[in-house]
Amino acid sequence: MADTKWVYSFNSKNTEGNQSMKNLLGGKGANLAEMSSLGLAVPPGFTVTTEACIDYEKNGSKISEEIRSQVKKSIEETEKIFGKKFGDSKDPLLFSVRSGARVSMPGMMDTVLNLGMNDQTVLGVAELTGNPRFAWDSYRRFIQMYANVVMGFNTSLLEATLEDLKEARGVSEDTELSGSDLEELVRVYKKIILEETGKSFPQDPIDQMWESIAAVFGSWNNPRAHKYRELNDFSHDWGTAVNVQSMVFGNMGNDCATGVCFTRDPSTGERRFFGEYLVNAQGEDVVAGIRTPAPINECSKNDSNKNLKTLEEIMPEAFKELVEVYTKLEHHYRDMQDIEFTIENNKLFILQTRNGKRTAAAGLKIAVDFVEEGLLSKAEAVTRMKPEDLNQLLHPRLDPDAKKNLIAVGLPASPGAACGEVVFTSEKAHALHETGKKVLLVRQETSPEDIGGMVASQGILTARGGMTSHAAVVARGMGKPCVAGCTALLIDSKAETLTVNGKSYSEGDFLTIDGGTGEVIEGVVPTIAASISDDFATFMNWADEIRTLRIRTNADNPEDCETALNFGAEGIGLCRTEHMFFEAERILAVREMIFAKSREEREKALFKILPFQREDFLGIFKAMTGKPVNIRLLDPPLHEFLPHSEEDIKQLADSLGLEVRAIEDRKEQLEEFNPMLGHRGCRLGITYPEIYSMQVRAIMEAAIDASESGAKVSPEIMIPLVSLEGELSTLRDLTEKTIATVFEEKGKKIEFKIGTMIELPRAAITAAKIAEHADFFSFGTNDLTQTTYGLSRDDGGKFLPEYVGKLLQYDPFVSLDQEGVGFLVNHALVEGKKTNPEMHMGICGEHGGEPRSIEFCHKIGLDYVSCSPFRVPIARLAAAQAALKFAK
Amino acid sequence: MADTKWVYSFNSKNTEGNQSMKNLLGGKGANLAEMSSLGLAVPPGFTVTTEACIDYEKNGSKISEEIRSQVKKSIEETEKIFGKKFGDSKDPLLFSVRSGARVSMPGMMDTVLNLGMNDQTVLGVAELTGNPRFAWDSYRRFIQMYANVVMGFNTSLLEATLEDLKEARGVSEDTELSGSDLEELVRVYKKIILEETGKSFPQDPIDQMWESIAAVFGSWNNPRAHKYRELNDFSHDWGTAVNVQSMVFGNMGNDCATGVCFTRDPSTGERRFFGEYLVNAQGEDVVAGIRTPAPINECSKNDSNKNLKTLEEIMPEAFKELVEVYTKLEHHYRDMQDIEFTIENNKLFILQTRNGKRTAAAGLKIAVDFVEEGLLSKAEAVTRMKPEDLNQLLHPRLDPDAKKNLIAVGLPASPGAACGEVVFTSEKAHALHETGKKVLLVRQETSPEDIGGMVASQGILTARGGMTSHAAVVARGMGKPCVAGCTALLIDSKAETLTVNGKSYSEGDFLTIDGGTGEVIEGVVPTIAASISDDFATFMNWADEIRTLRIRTNADNPEDCETALNFGAEGIGLCRTEHMFFEAERILAVREMIFAKSREEREKALFKILPFQREDFLGIFKAMTGKPVNIRLLDPPLHEFLPHSEEDIKQLADSLGLEVRAIEDRKEQLEEFNPMLGHRGCRLGITYPEIYSMQVRAIMEAAIDASESGAKVSPEIMIPLVSLEGELSTLRDLTEKTIATVFEEKGKKIEFKIGTMIELPRAAITAAKIAEHADFFSFGTNDLTQTTYGLSRDDGGKFLPEYVGKLLQYDPFVSLDQEGVGFLVNHALVEGKKTNPEMHMGICGEHGGEPRSIEFCHKIGLDYVSCSPFRVPIARLAAAQAALKFAK
Repeated sequence: MADTKWVYSFNSKNTEGNQSMKNLLGGKGANLAEMSSLGLAVPPGFTVTTEACIDYEKNGSKISEEIRSQVKKSIEETEKIFGKKFGDSKDPLLFSVRSGARVSMPGMMDTVLNLGMNDQTVLGVAELTGNPRFAWDSYRRFIQMYANVVMGFNTSLLEATLEDLKEARGVSEDTELSGSDLEELVRVYKKIILEETGKSFPQDPIDQMWESIAAVFGSWNNPRAHKYRELNDFSHDWGTAVNVQSMVFGNMGNDCATGVCFTRDPSTGERRFFGEYLVNAQGEDVVAGIRTPAPINECSKNDSNKNLKTLEEIMPEAFKELVEVYTKLEHHYRDMQDIEFTIENNKLFILQTRNGKRTAAAGLKIAVDFVEEGLLSKAEAVTRMKPEDLNQLLHPRLDPDAKKNLIAVGLPASPGAACGEVVFTSEKAHALHETGKKVLLVRQETSPEDIGGMVASQGILTARGGMTSHAAVVARGMGKPCVAGCTALLIDSKAETLTVNGKSYSEGDFLTIDGGTGEVIEGVVPTIAASISDDFATFMNWADEIRTLRIRTNADNPEDCETALNFGAEGIGLCRTEHMFFEAERILAVREMIFAKSREEREKALFKILPFQREDFLGIFKAMTGKPVNIRLLDPPLHEFLPHSEEDIKQLADSLGLEVRAIEDRKEQLEEFNPMLGHRGCRLGITYPEIYSMQVRAIMEAAIDASESGAKVSPEIMIPLVSLEGELSTLRDLTEKTIATVFEEKGKKIEFKIGTMIELPRAAITAAKIAEHADFFSFGTNDLTQTTYGLSRDDGGKFLPEYVGKLLQYDPFVSLDQEGVGFLVNHALVEGKKTNPEMHMGICGEHGGEPRSIEFCHKIGLDYVSCSPFRVPIARLAAAQAALKFAK
Repeated sequence: MADTKWVYSFNSKNTEGNQSMKNLLGGKGANLAEMSSLGLAVPPGFTVTTEACIDYEKNGSKISEEIRSQVKKSIEETEKIFGKKFGDSKDPLLFSVRSGARVSMPGMMDTVLNLGMNDQTVLGVAELTGNPRFAWDSYRRFIQMYANVVMGFNTSLLEATLEDLKEARGVSEDTELSGSDLEELVRVYKKIILEETGKSFPQDPIDQMWESIAAVFGSWNNPRAHKYRELNDFSHDWGTAVNVQSMVFGNMGNDCATGVCFTRDPSTGERRFFGEYLVNAQGEDVVAGIRTPAPINECSKNDSNKNLKTLEEIMPEAFKELVEVYTKLEHHYRDMQDIEFTIENNKLFILQTRNGKRTAAAGLKIAVDFVEEGLLSKAEAVTRMKPEDLNQLLHPRLDPDAKKNLIAVGLPASPGAACGEVVFTSEKAHALHETGKKVLLVRQETSPEDIGGMVASQGILTARGGMTSHAAVVARGMGKPCVAGCTALLIDSKAETLTVNGKSYSEGDFLTIDGGTGEVIEGVVPTIAASISDDFATFMNWADEIRTLRIRTNADNPEDCETALNFGAEGIGLCRTEHMFFEAERILAVREMIFAKSREEREKALFKILPFQREDFLGIFKAMTGKPVNIRLLDPPLHEFLPHSEEDIKQLADSLGLEVRAIEDRKEQLEEFNPMLGHRGCRLGITYPEIYSMQVRAIMEAAIDASESGAKVSPEIMIPLVSLEGELSTLRDLTEKTIATVFEEKGKKIEFKIGTMIELPRAAITAAKIAEHADFFSFGTNDLTQTTYGLSRDDGGKFLPEYVGKLLQYDPFVSLDQEGVGFLVNHALVEGKKTNPEMHMGICGEHGGEPRSIEFCHKIGLDYVSCSPFRVPIARLAAAQAALKFAK
């Protein structure tokens, strides 16, 4: 092993690593090397490799002589470059020591700063800087950090001492302590450490170095890091590197400064250099907010700092160099940079540069500008935007600067911010909305009867239900903010109150929700409206050029179709017919059908529904001209259409000329223990074929009517919840017969497809047989997830949150479970295509709008995904990114 | 095709077929050939092959000349052998024509008898027999059968004419009509046929022959037969054969007779030749019950026929020949035979012989005797008994001769007959049982609270729930008769009445149920007690020698263990701990646990349950010494343990010192939309680890105690409802820690296993990973069926009966769905063994006691099945039969 290179230098003369060496040098080490090799004034130092970490482990937690010797050589090299000596009592070189694995990882060792400080060097620093307070504070901080992260010492004793001292001095901030206070503190710290550990605080800088490196290596195997790697399937054999870098100080006098800058405006994306700095300060002072940071240049000025001098004014040389650096960095990294710099005695040092955080709007503008500036290809630009971030552009959001009195957090079920008076019934929502009020609908859980109330509300808040509960799905479809499954809420529907943490809210009280985070906030929080720029269209067109997966939408009415088309939808992947059943004029006929005593009576009632359904479909076919429209036949169990309240039951009894008792008996008869696994979907079609017949007739009559009025129609009829080949073959026969009758009556034929939803494990398993009767498969991954996991989306909310992040990486109702549910989807795809290679396949569950799931759909070779209208842009982008990822 | 042999003769001189030619000659044809080749006096005839049927179809529904020519040749051959001529006006040869496919198949053509009768031959027969009435009746019957089955004529008109004639003659029975009445009837029949069809009734016997053969061939493709083949996956290309056989008559005078005999007693299996006959009679007269049949020999005498002369007395020659025949047949077919014979003019003809129907007890005795007589090997004997038939030996059954006033049919949920006063609550069941009354518990559906009431009842009848509903599962476990899901019953629990078809029953009314057929019968029907003979043990030992699959039992208490051990169980495959939670002293502690506000409070409540659980397990471990005991940790959702009635809620509130409102709030909070898919199984273990800890502690403390008192214990701890690897690894850790603590406290270690139930599709799919943490897999195929199909066993009862036999061959809750659920079981087995080849695997769903499912389990290589105690013998036999089947 004598030939192994364990240590890689980075300095202005000799930089041995680069960005591509993440596995060996860790992310941070590779980055320091990369910056250094660009010729930037990075404080010099070196990286001990990840391989050294593994060697350390194998060696019984010992740093080998060979490694020690290479480290020592690199210290000497750094001393030469920097012109200071490690441990020198006059002008000592100080180091920072940081861990750095190939990916950033919680649980790893924190930073140790000012390594090299001891009872001698502290005096040298005091003398050299003429600032004893600075010197003793640096030493004091070093001891505290070292004791904590290297010695594993519980520092609460040290902190208590600091607090005691401040109390004795009658001050409240650390900064108010004097140099001699801090000198005293150092003395006490060392005493406590000796007493508690039986060991003196190490005075030899090289011992400090070995111990610190060993501590970083040791932290690779601490339980938290171990657990994290297991959870993320990261190898324990990667190891971590150690970055040892010389310290520079921005607080050694008035020719020193420290600051942060962005190469473009992180809020808007505008192309302007932009930042803040403080003279004679440390990095942490900039963010601490005690002193107001100054603008680096004119264009960084704002109301609070416009009277302060700019860096450009007071340190023009350093500023000029900074401008050169930022241009170089943007070109090199081909992205907007967030740069940390320090000026020590008028010399500029670049401490860190990274891709800057930005708002979605800024991200979009920067990506588009970079393409126009020739810095990026379109494909690269497309990968730069996180699909979910588009939500910020499509929905109003909370003003990030506003104060928020958070009262609870639920599931982030549908993005966007909403605020309004709380109401507890859909009727009330509707009534107050009519008077021009903004309302927030608060429910235990919504049901199809609440659709009107949801439309009338700014947003929806529920105490039960998961990410694919009724409230969540419908809200996403409407593009309305929704927080679901907020179990901390106690809702008393009778009293119309909402109690959380002992405080009650009732009608007239205002709440605000953030459907992107799940936050529930007391009162009114200002929001920022959604805005879509021209850049958006440009950017999305690039995505469309790249992607191969088609994007359809889940839409039940012409309005949703319009929204989705505007967002770029290429067809309907799921039109749920049952939502139509709830509208006022129809629900009575639906209930009449449920109470029918014979097939004839049932057909009579269905005949009343027919014209309504036909009208609905006509509107949809016209809106979607030229695009496929996939319509699912009736899916929910019949009891969902029955009234719940005593009053409604009474009313229904009157309308139907029945006793209340008869209504209740039928309700009881239809009641189910597990409605999710009950008499629904095609099982209704088998027992009541006349229901499906009516629906098929309505679809085909509407399709022909639409076609005669000039629309180009492609109806797809979807039979839900199939588990047996015989169900589909029987219902396909029925459907074809009905269609043949309609064609004959109308004297016209049109093309159509008949297929099924694959939403039960058995259907996926036996897909080869089911495919014999299907022109298409549409994967209903909501129900498939429920049955594959044996987990009700309506009930999971009670314990699933405890699972996510621990036993589960993602909520399977949000991001498709690729290992379990995905196995079945892939199996069905492969088996189905064996039988019928021509059949087209898509996904219409809620996963169709989630980027990770979309990537999976692309990878296994689905033809399309279908999602709610507001997620169409997200799906387009995610599909493009998936295409790029797998093209490589 | 000129070389093809289309027709195979069977007669005393020339028999061209044999038993092995079923595919070509059909089952019946092969059998006739076999009997004929044994030298039995079978009436001669011939079989037109199944290939001829296919040829007929291909030929545009025409019988080819070649076939016709071969048929004609065979008719001539038969004429020579029989000494009569077809169509002869003096002594005509008459034929029967029957269809006969390779398996018997509903929808195929019925028999035509007396073919060859016409206006001339009828006179010849009348003259020859001196019995014009017989001749005209034969002709009349022939016309009626031929018109119906060959001409496809709706014979209601003919039947009406017959009724009119009887009315005109003032008689009620056909037999009371005179010869001239029948002659008149023939005239009218022919007239009606001419008028209605425009065609004369065919007079040429050879035309009758061609039409009859064509009708048989045509019936192969009638819709009913077609449907039946599709449902059973039988090929449409098999075709049916046609059997043409000369007629013999037992009713041509006093030297004629007809009868039926069994080679052994079909009720008891005793070795005695046994039968009945009638002089001068037709076969149907024996069963018609108008004349009392006489005993064939002394030992066939009974109270009603003891004064009649035996066949042995009046036709000693024929009888002697019959005895020879029967011995020959038993040796040849190696089974008890049911023989139909006719004596025409003192000559014995054997019309049919087949394996005789028998009671289960007889079947068992015959199988054992045949082995002892050297006629069968043990392995063959084992295949002779249908496993389900053992139920007759294990449960009381209805007296088959008793009258039954059937009022409804439900699902045959647990075999055996029971009768008692109806009661509607478990309390009432218990109370009346205490007074010595026999009661039948009638419930909408049972819940765990009803266990006491079920124990006190003779049987259970429910209106809801399927074959694996609570009532069904528990009743089978108890070996108690149960009819479940009898949807025709309207149960008013408040009024305590049961209404069916408009008639109401209330307490004090008696009902009888047959859990083997699902029948519900008014009043008291006499039953026959169960009885187990020595033969049973002998027979079951043979099965045990053959089988490789182990048989465990599902048992929750020492009593069930004893029952199961007596029936041959080799361990416990599933011990459900939750049943123990319901007993009076414990349920309060369980509820206290549910209402606990902190982990500490919960642990306090659990600590009260611990000693009870330990006691339970101790009893079980002692009973099962030397055998593995698999105990499942808590599975049902907590709300199952909460009280339902207002009174019980009030009582609980008082006991816990809480407001009623608090109880109701918690109930509401725990309520689930789909409890089957809710917060249960290991999900409880994850959220409340202290529950599982307590149970593991109870198990291991009991195991050590049992072991110290001399029992040999092998505990297996089973973690239910796993869907994620992390659930099992977490709970395995917890379990191992608890066990380590117990071992330390007790100062003793024992062997144990920890494993999981595979009952969710995701667990089966990801079995390779789950196996990393499991010592065994136990397939919970009840829940796996529910989730694979997306079908609740509690709700499926509403529509599943419509599916079975149409879309589904078997109820998937009764017989394992091999294609869907079986795919997952097999996948998990293969994947699990890849990870851990040593792990053992079994099935503990209700399918573990069902023969088809057991065969599947054997085939894929499971180690054991586990079933309710009373099904253990059935499983042992089914496992032996599976071993034999796949050894071939």
